[in-house]
Amino acid sequence: MTDIAFQHPFDDDKLHEECGVFGVFGNVEAAALTALGLHALQHRGQEACGIVSFDNTQFHSHRSIGRVGDNFGDEAVIAGLAGHCAIGHNRYSTSGEPALRNVQPLFADLGHGGLAIAHNGNLTNAQTLRNELVSRGSIFQSTMDSEVIIHLTATSRQARIVDRLTDALRQVVGAYSLVVLTSKKLIGVRDPMGIRPLVLGRLDEAYILASETCALEIIGAEFVREIDPGEMVVVDEDGITSHRPFPTHPRRFCIFEHVYFARPDSIFDDRSVYEARKRIGAELAKESHAPADLVIPIPDSGTPAALGYAQQVGLPFELGIIRNHYIGRTFIEPTDQIRHLGVRLKHSANAPLVKGKRIVLVDDSIVRGTTSTKIVTMMREAGASEVHMRIASPPTAHSCYYGVDTPERSKLLAARYDLAEMARLIGVDTLAFVSIDGLYRAMGETSRNEGQPQYCDACFTGDYPLALVDRDGGQETQLSLLNERR
Amino acid sequence: MTDIAFQHPFDDDKLHEECGVFGVFGNVEAAALTALGLHALQHRGQEACGIVSFDNTQFHSHRSIGRVGDNFGDEAVIAGLAGHCAIGHNRYSTSGEPALRNVQPLFADLGHGGLAIAHNGNLTNAQTLRNELVSRGSIFQSTMDSEVIIHLTATSRQARIVDRLTDALRQVVGAYSLVVLTSKKLIGVRDPMGIRPLVLGRLDEAYILASETCALEIIGAEFVREIDPGEMVVVDEDGITSHRPFPTHPRRFCIFEHVYFARPDSIFDDRSVYEARKRIGAELAKESHAPADLVIPIPDSGTPAALGYAQQVGLPFELGIIRNHYIGRTFIEPTDQIRHLGVRLKHSANAPLVKGKRIVLVDDSIVRGTTSTKIVTMMREAGASEVHMRIASPPTAHSCYYGVDTPERSKLLAARYDLAEMARLIGVDTLAFVSIDGLYRAMGETSRNEGQPQYCDACFTGDYPLALVDRDGGQETQLSLLNERR
Amino acid sequence: MTDIAFQHPFDDDKLHEECGVFGVFGNVEAAALTALGLHALQHRGQEACGIVSFDNTQFHSHRSIGRVGDNFGDEAVIAGLAGHCAIGHNRYSTSGEPALRNVQPLFADLGHGGLAIAHNGNLTNAQTLRNELVSRGSIFQSTMDSEVIIHLTATSRQARIVDRLTDALRQVVGAYSLVVLTSKKLIGVRDPMGIRPLVLGRLDEAYILASETCALEIIGAEFVREIDPGEMVVVDEDGITSHRPFPTHPRRFCIFEHVYFARPDSIFDDRSVYEARKRIGAELAKESHAPADLVIPIPDSGTPAALGYAQQVGLPFELGIIRNHYIGRTFIEPTDQIRHLGVRLKHSANAPLVKGKRIVLVDDSIVRGTTSTKIVTMMREAGASEVHMRIASPPTAHSCYYGVDTPERSKLLAARYDLAEMARLIGVDTLAFVSIDGLYRAMGETSRNEGQPQYCDACFTGDYPLALVDRDGGQETQLSLLNERR
Amino acid sequence: MTDIAFQHPFDDDKLHEECGVFGVFGNVEAAALTALGLHALQHRGQEACGIVSFDNTQFHSHRSIGRVGDNFGDEAVIAGLAGHCAIGHNRYSTSGEPALRNVQPLFADLGHGGLAIAHNGNLTNAQTLRNELVSRGSIFQSTMDSEVIIHLTATSRQARIVDRLTDALRQVVGAYSLVVLTSKKLIGVRDPMGIRPLVLGRLDEAYILASETCALEIIGAEFVREIDPGEMVVVDEDGITSHRPFPTHPRRFCIFEHVYFARPDSIFDDRSVYEARKRIGAELAKESHAPADLVIPIPDSGTPAALGYAQQVGLPFELGIIRNHYIGRTFIEPTDQIRHLGVRLKHSANAPLVKGKRIVLVDDSIVRGTTSTKIVTMMREAGASEVHMRIASPPTAHSCYYGVDTPERSKLLAARYDLAEMARLIGVDTLAFVSIDGLYRAMGETSRNEGQPQYCDACFTGDYPLALVDRDGGQETQLSLLNERR
Repeated sequence: MTDIAFQHPFDDDKLHEECGVFGVFGNVEAAALTALGLHALQHRGQEACGIVSFDNTQFHSHRSIGRVGDNFGDEAVIAGLAGHCAIGHNRYSTSGEPALRNVQPLFADLGHGGLAIAHNGNLTNAQTLRNELVSRGSIFQSTMDSEVIIHLTATSRQARIVDRLTDALRQVVGAYSLVVLTSKKLIGVRDPMGIRPLVLGRLDEAYILASETCALEIIGAEFVREIDPGEMVVVDEDGITSHRPFPTHPRRFCIFEHVYFARPDSIFDDRSVYEARKRIGAELAKESHAPADLVIPIPDSGTPAALGYAQQVGLPFELGIIRNHYIGRTFIEPTDQIRHLGVRLKHSANAPLVKGKRIVLVDDSIVRGTTSTKIVTMMREAGASEVHMRIASPPTAHSCYYGVDTPERSKLLAARYDLAEMARLIGVDTLAFVSIDGLYRAMGETSRNEGQPQYCDACFTGDYPLALVDRDGGQETQLSLLNERR
Repeated sequence: MTDIAFQHPFDDDKLHEECGVFGVFGNVEAAALTALGLHALQHRGQEACGIVSFDNTQFHSHRSIGRVGDNFGDEAVIAGLAGHCAIGHNRYSTSGEPALRNVQPLFADLGHGGLAIAHNGNLTNAQTLRNELVSRGSIFQSTMDSEVIIHLTATSRQARIVDRLTDALRQVVGAYSLVVLTSKKLIGVRDPMGIRPLVLGRLDEAYILASETCALEIIGAEFVREIDPGEMVVVDEDGITSHRPFPTHPRRFCIFEHVYFARPDSIFDDRSVYEARKRIGAELAKESHAPADLVIPIPDSGTPAALGYAQQVGLPFELGIIRNHYIGRTFIEPTDQIRHLGVRLKHSANAPLVKGKRIVLVDDSIVRGTTSTKIVTMMREAGASEVHMRIASPPTAHSCYYGVDTPERSKLLAARYDLAEMARLIGVDTLAFVSIDGLYRAMGETSRNEGQPQYCDACFTGDYPLALVDRDGGQETQLSLLNERR
Repeated sequence: MTDIAFQHPFDDDKLHEECGVFGVFGNVEAAALTALGLHALQHRGQEACGIVSFDNTQFHSHRSIGRVGDNFGDEAVIAGLAGHCAIGHNRYSTSGEPALRNVQPLFADLGHGGLAIAHNGNLTNAQTLRNELVSRGSIFQSTMDSEVIIHLTATSRQARIVDRLTDALRQVVGAYSLVVLTSKKLIGVRDPMGIRPLVLGRLDEAYILASETCALEIIGAEFVREIDPGEMVVVDEDGITSHRPFPTHPRRFCIFEHVYFARPDSIFDDRSVYEARKRIGAELAKESHAPADLVIPIPDSGTPAALGYAQQVGLPFELGIIRNHYIGRTFIEPTDQIRHLGVRLKHSANAPLVKGKRIVLVDDSIVRGTTSTKIVTMMREAGASEVHMRIASPPTAHSCYYGVDTPERSKLLAARYDLAEMARLIGVDTLAFVSIDGLYRAMGETSRNEGQPQYCDACFTGDYPLALVDRDGGQETQLSLLNERR
Repeated sequence: MTDIAFQHPFDDDKLHEECGVFGVFGNVEAAALTALGLHALQHRGQEACGIVSFDNTQFHSHRSIGRVGDNFGDEAVIAGLAGHCAIGHNRYSTSGEPALRNVQPLFADLGHGGLAIAHNGNLTNAQTLRNELVSRGSIFQSTMDSEVIIHLTATSRQARIVDRLTDALRQVVGAYSLVVLTSKKLIGVRDPMGIRPLVLGRLDEAYILASETCALEIIGAEFVREIDPGEMVVVDEDGITSHRPFPTHPRRFCIFEHVYFARPDSIFDDRSVYEARKRIGAELAKESHAPADLVIPIPDSGTPAALGYAQQVGLPFELGIIRNHYIGRTFIEPTDQIRHLGVRLKHSANAPLVKGKRIVLVDDSIVRGTTSTKIVTMMREAGASEVHMRIASPPTAHSCYYGVDTPERSKLLAARYDLAEMARLIGVDTLAFVSIDGLYRAMGETSRNEGQPQYCDACFTGDYPLALVDRDGGQETQLSLLNERR
């Protein structure tokens, strides 16, 4: 899901996955399992989280700003979320629109029963659809694109909930992995290109849906399979059924899930993310190694690629940068004089190690380049004699419209500068990115299939597989904005 | 407004007005004036309050659980509610449904602009309408009857907002005094019988709408007139216009506003509420005085009637009961042994005064009788030799469906017992209520016009002027209840 | 107790009693009884409150900013205050020093056992003693004068706790009613002149100490007697004993307790406070009645005197001013334009009543005159044709140093202006105060005994019965101030 | 500092450093620098933190439960801590005694000026001294051993503050690194054996004191030198002076600082902690390598030793365990069924990596063994064919009394079982600890000097360099415990 009406300030120099989703049907501890699943998916969204359960009579909801452990660690909260089925959602979000109304799962009373929905992805025609719905009398509660789906479902002329949801989804364009809970069913749907992930698991009699396999692991559930692109699975008392209500498209899974978003112990397409990252590091080393003494990861996201790189070239892998994990969300550098310390709140140099050494710094990606610049300065001040930066993805030169929080294109370093300029700005002796074909090789492909790419790689190539309806139609936000304060 | 889905536990032995409303158009301090108006109307609802303003670009909203002074006393909150027009709402509410989503004003983005609404009253066909709306795809945000009005307005086929609102109100049955804010207009509407109050005021160039005149007084506004039953007034940049879109009904103003709800310094129909209460007390004394030494009010609501009573019979008016105004909402009597102290947390006997005296206790009404019983016991323990209770309203024997929080009929003392039984249960030597005609005489009428009563007095007579559609149609709440926790 | 180091801003135009104290020994619900007693004494201090109990093993403490009902209404809080004995304290306080460290009861571990103390009054040599104690190594936790007592007790060379406390109190000068709890005893002490009140009660086997009899009433305890000036009572498992460790002084009870501080249903010296106030009103009427139509109290404190006045002169007593009891502590008038509304947040005129009438306004006292001025303006705007103000105490022209929060003398209206000037400033047609002898007559005395006044009336006469050591010795606060933030 | 009166429950299977201290003299941003320094020292205590500053007139204090970033990230908080000098403290603490009164820095008004103190370490005769002080009339505010120092200073007969503090410290036995702030001076003191660390830095004209060099790095300060064992440095407007008021002892720095407590980028004795840990890993590999396919650290504390181990034996270093850094303090496993998931909330297996592999797990230490057991089970379930655990410290078989939070000896795995039993309980194929001499070799020594060990290693050897006065004197806590609730 994304927020239609508000700009996303960028509080960190990384792309951010917008959401994680989870659902369970058929376990008496449904809400507790969902809380654990969301905890395992915390890296996909740390701003807010919510769970909706159904106890055969009533839906229960608890949604909060903050992390899963802080909000669902209390036994009384879990006890309040009664029922044998539940869905949950993690949100990555922003300072622009802090309201609780934008925390998922969304819920609606549809007359024949309630409907709760959790969405990972982004719809590219949400504003267009919203304008139509509002003109026909629908009243929106939030500024989320995802709410369009719930209103399309509510106003569908179809009788059965599965048909109404299908009817709704046929009207949307975009990336979505949905987990839906009704009074009788748990439904999982993945958009026709399978851009965002969704996996199916099993724990005894219960079925589980989750964004990543690591959320199955934490509860001891067995991994069954991925939901296919364009597939809708419906779980109820009679078991699980699979539907294919949408036209077939070739799969275009988001390659950035392998590069950065997913947890290293997750598996997609039978590929371990950890191994994929190590292979990218190895490809990177093959393509562009520079003579050096040490290979140093930028922690934590650059670590697997750095290991792969170091093993490929036979150099020592060393912790030249110490990450401070105690940094809270709220630490504001207090004064101007101190603001320049910046990155040291999160990272510090292991100065005795790097002094006088030629180092290779390995990171997963460069977005705006601000963090890279600070880290290189820090390494130079710690005495590194040469600094070579190696990036385990191609240059990120295009915005994502499919559920990833990217800065405007004009803020992307690689959209503004060529390689030499980037190296100079960041302050490194040499800079190299893995090639797009190197990235595909690390995924086990021979190369990128230019006619029909095997992944969505629009952030690297600008090749957008799905129409950008709102953007290209000049759709402006026309909400009578309500600025809600509490 | 009332809550459709939840039972109202009764935390006090009084009937409770459900709401107060306020609106202002044309003053740069619109939100500050609204906060003051709501403060003056605090007696109409103390559970929650909210203000929505419009600054020609954006609507601003602040809604909170608690009282006006606690939520709108902060200059920053008022500063955030920018604009020259604003509406506000006080809510009396309940422990059953604590959610902020049920705090008014309600807001909706209607496509051509935003709409905020504050409602005092209750719709008797809200559930029926809600079921129809939901079946056509409307998604409700709250469990309040008032939300029906906003969805009917949203789905109206009319073009202009005034026509859409009129269209909506033609479908509802019930009592309502509404204050509505759009991006261009402030609208006030009173239901065709004028059951709930709504007055118009003026402060320099600005127009004011309020439940009672005391809310005009606090901001130094001039009282212009009451809104007529069935009238809709529309204030915009061009001034004020009056509309009569509904069929004419004879006026049936709630007589309990005079008995208890309204503030004594308010004026309805050119009648001072304080004087009305004193006259009721005088009528009561004429009808049923008992020989005694002192007249003692049950504070604070019985005080004006007790003064009228004492002046009529020429006995000393004395403060025989001291009220503790520091009692918070949250004082729970801590243990069983102490629970019997009950009423003393709020009231204590002025024992030196009453010892050995024959006293007349005057109260405005008896609902369940629990407080009366405790107070009589307290007076006896303080040494009163005789206790005569006089009630400045007829027996409350019927529930209200027009916006007043009443217990189920079976909980109403006067619905279960005759006068002698009530006297025995309460423990008084004698008990008397003012007669229904005595009450009308105090209002300046000769008597109640049985064919066409001059007021709504259904709580005394069971004579309901408006159809009880949901109740009589057996409408059950059919919400897919979402039990939201935070 | 008072705060040595901080100026007390004056947030209301009344003098304020600084504290209420309560103690119980010998009841299994000691903490619950204490909470109720403090609730009944809430008028003596609303800023903060605390309870310390002892369960034969451990002391338990709960101290909070805010009122009793808000802090001790929770059953879990009371359950945490285990034990059969407890003491409690209400504090009236100030914005200057909000810290919890200044909330009583104070507690210290004295080596042979713990000691908790609650103090009503003020020591006039506290700073002098504090400076000496600090120079010998005592470390103070608070800025309260009362803490001196606890350090003097801690450093006493006496062996037994009663002797150590006596030793301490022999060194202090000032007004104090103390309630002290040790691991074995409940101790009550009143200063040698008995300036502040302290009463003894009994509830079954338990002994109770309280500032006023109304705190006995609320728990159904029997009033035994007042603690005598200079008396120390000690309650333990063996019963109660009385000690007279201090030189004898004639009694000088604070007459302002009768005028304003105490609750009307309390009794001192066999005199009902309510009756005393009515008699002051009657004396006032005898001394200075003006022809008028109505007698109107300034609620709530002027009400008994107004009743006495009206009964004396045979005029109607009417509620011409409506008080809004919903005013919170936190309502800040939001903007300049609105600030002039001032008093209307608390009081509003009953305009229909006073229009065209000659009125007598009765209040208990005038401090700075700001509220009086606003109320008179309000009455004039409501149409009163003449406004006569009658004050049920002599002019308040001197500061109190014995436990009452008074503004600096230069802020006291009566210290700056004569009667005619005051009348003009307040805006009344006539103004009169009861004479000092009238006040003493209302107390049952023939007149004030000039050689040996029967009460402390320093605020009216400047006749201070106890030396003002710190003030006259030029003692400055010399604390190394710690400005604690949370 | 430690808490005298309460048991420390052990919420994690690690020893915990109790505190970090920091001080600055001579910079206009003293409080902001202190906040940053405390942030860099967050690993030394995460429960609470506080800063006291002095602005030449007044001391300012802000102390809070929680982490530095959450409490000192707000510019307004820093702005409130005015002055050019400040000290700060991080506390590791416990659920037993949550009170804010136990958060440092401690403050006292000493008559001639204020004194604030922050303490890392633990006094072994605190209870003995406290009992004496209380018997002479000192009143303690907290249950911290550190408060003894402040009372000894307050009651000293010496005139100058430096002499009073020296006088106080001559009476205490134990480990302490103190940072003290007066109205004129910043003082740093290290106990005569230098058990806890304290370093001196310089930032332009300002002097800095800190527990570790990493706190100098974060603010860009230059490392000057360590404070010597038994040295007192005094910084004031005239510069810095060094004093040696205590008898000389050979240095016995805590070796566990190198093993686990200190941050890897800190330097003690010219030794990089990171390098020391790598060398321990290498020694461990030399002493007890087992044939395996992969070396896997238990993150994060085992990582440097695992790198050293892997480099020594030439095996791949791989991330076989993924740590979830989002785990909050408050995540309580919600239900019994789920509780067995335990360690997975923090750690998860990288199953594709370890499946079928023989692995060496490297950790820094074993305390109770609970986490080790869970991790081994997790590795087995992930398919590891052999699990060999290697520990980069000798068996932890003795409690620490010098400022480290250790469980009772009976809870220490190594105090109860021999190596074979431990291996069986943990479930590994083989288990080995580095030898005590191996550990000393890694520190650059030939071996442990048995007659005069170069470090304090009492937790491994039971050889306590300082008398355990309270423990051996049978000193019981004799506080009249006040159980304070808020």
